[in-house]
Amino acid sequence: MLGLLDQDGSIIANISEPTQTQLGPISLVERMVKNCRDLIRQNNIPEDQVKALGIGSPGPLSISKGKVINLCNLPGFVDFPLRSEMSQRLQIPALLENDANAACWGEFWLGAGRNINNMVLYTLGTGIGGGIIINGELVHGHDDNGAELGHMIIQTDGRYCACGQHGCVETYASANATAARAEEALDQGTSSSLLAVRKRKGSLTSKDVFEHAAAGDNLANEIVDGTCRSLAQVCVNMLHATEPEMIVLTGGMIKAGDILLDRVRSFFRHMIWNLKAETMEICYATLGDNSGFIGAAGLALDGFRKGHRLYSPGV
Amino acid sequence: MLGLLDQDGSIIANISEPTQTQLGPISLVERMVKNCRDLIRQNNIPEDQVKALGIGSPGPLSISKGKVINLCNLPGFVDFPLRSEMSQRLQIPALLENDANAACWGEFWLGAGRNINNMVLYTLGTGIGGGIIINGELVHGHDDNGAELGHMIIQTDGRYCACGQHGCVETYASANATAARAEEALDQGTSSSLLAVRKRKGSLTSKDVFEHAAAGDNLANEIVDGTCRSLAQVCVNMLHATEPEMIVLTGGMIKAGDILLDRVRSFFRHMIWNLKAETMEICYATLGDNSGFIGAAGLALDGFRKGHRLYSPGV
Repeated sequence: MLGLLDQDGSIIANISEPTQTQLGPISLVERMVKNCRDLIRQNNIPEDQVKALGIGSPGPLSISKGKVINLCNLPGFVDFPLRSEMSQRLQIPALLENDANAACWGEFWLGAGRNINNMVLYTLGTGIGGGIIINGELVHGHDDNGAELGHMIIQTDGRYCACGQHGCVETYASANATAARAEEALDQGTSSSLLAVRKRKGSLTSKDVFEHAAAGDNLANEIVDGTCRSLAQVCVNMLHATEPEMIVLTGGMIKAGDILLDRVRSFFRHMIWNLKAETMEICYATLGDNSGFIGAAGLALDGFRKGHRLYSPGV
Repeated sequence: MLGLLDQDGSIIANISEPTQTQLGPISLVERMVKNCRDLIRQNNIPEDQVKALGIGSPGPLSISKGKVINLCNLPGFVDFPLRSEMSQRLQIPALLENDANAACWGEFWLGAGRNINNMVLYTLGTGIGGGIIINGELVHGHDDNGAELGHMIIQTDGRYCACGQHGCVETYASANATAARAEEALDQGTSSSLLAVRKRKGSLTSKDVFEHAAAGDNLANEIVDGTCRSLAQVCVNMLHATEPEMIVLTGGMIKAGDILLDRVRSFFRHMIWNLKAETMEICYATLGDNSGFIGAAGLALDGFRKGHRLYSPGV
């Protein structure tokens, strides 16, 4: 996703294309640069009016150095200076931010959290990302990689995660994990209407699982309950950590709609302590797939205005 | 614990006596007020030179209203205005803070964390309390009860906690939980040198368990490993949440010494992801049992200097 925004965060134009990370980091940079130039030109914006570029990337990152430290299973993306590679080609000052942090900032700036000061966001997609805002500021952590909330462990000695840990919430409640847990149950011989889907398509998606749960399939409902219970658990945990006013869920999996949100809320109410009444709201993002680039742009604009955190390209 | 401190945080004098919460909140207030007056008088401090009173209490609290909302199993301490009750009797401006937050601030101000800006603290005692400092500021959360880190759930559908939740780290790794888990194993017939101790004393303490682990008892070592693994898990989780530079352990259980700290560190190294090298330090508090009253006094002093957060008694 790539967007061109004005200073109020209104979207002038945006485009989307597959990342194709397998082509390596330089190919990715060159395609992103071309898309940026196309977007600027097609919308008749003078190049010198584009003041800043915000880039959201999966972590771990060095935000201060503008580098991607390591992307799971992608050898070309180790210690890669994504910020300077983009900034120098485009000759635009640039900022690198964790993608989930960017989405969190987008929802905080213009979305579900626009009227509050303390929030947490979860991106529910291939994996699970996170963002934390305390008193109106993103939490970056001591070494730029705070709020990796998908890697909080919800089960001692639990499911293996590609990050090397066991029991990360990402391995239970991401879209991929939801589909994988359903497939594992089918492999064990559990009967389900999902069996025919897998026979037809070869594999399942979380969308299949949510649809069959809504249609009343027992296994699909058990899997969805597992996903929602895990998400409720991390909502409880973040309430007891930074105590946000709101937890915002976003990412592809929220297309499941009410069935997901209602169950997360229900498990949360069931699981939370009784020492005091809690008013924290769990809700969906309102900016759809755009929160990431809106947030990245907002942070870059903020950096431009305050004169900090932006990498300035040499001429 | 009650201490009289100068403006640099040096302890002029301090005393300790059992809380005896079963005598009710007014009795507690009256005994604390008497002890404060005695401490001031015995040290020849003119009363008008005592500028502020910091009070640390278990939560949940309303810090802004200066009230204890609810103490587990103590009916007299519901919605109790501890701050004004103390302040009016002593005629000293007062501040109420969560006890673990106060300990966290003490260690941050003058203890293990005095040279860093981002830390997390765990108090390991009857229960488990927590404190979080981000960029030099305590995290209070949206509704005054953030950093209740003992109630983060480390095991879905895990052990029952007095707070009403299941699987809180407090139910696995507090001093009480460590002793309780050992007793449960004895009840199930596991052979152990702890059996004779329980026969003699009627019950076990975490101190017994750590001592017998050090002496080589298998069961005691399993129990200690369970405690340390649970603590390592929450260290992993807080690294992925607010990413502190240091996690400080304090409270009665750290008297166990190296056996506890070494094993927590070892489990942490074993459990943490491999996407990047982590430098976060896990260490013990350096102010012993004094971090709580030092931190409470420091926060009250800070409130006095900045003119905020203190309740001022009527004359």
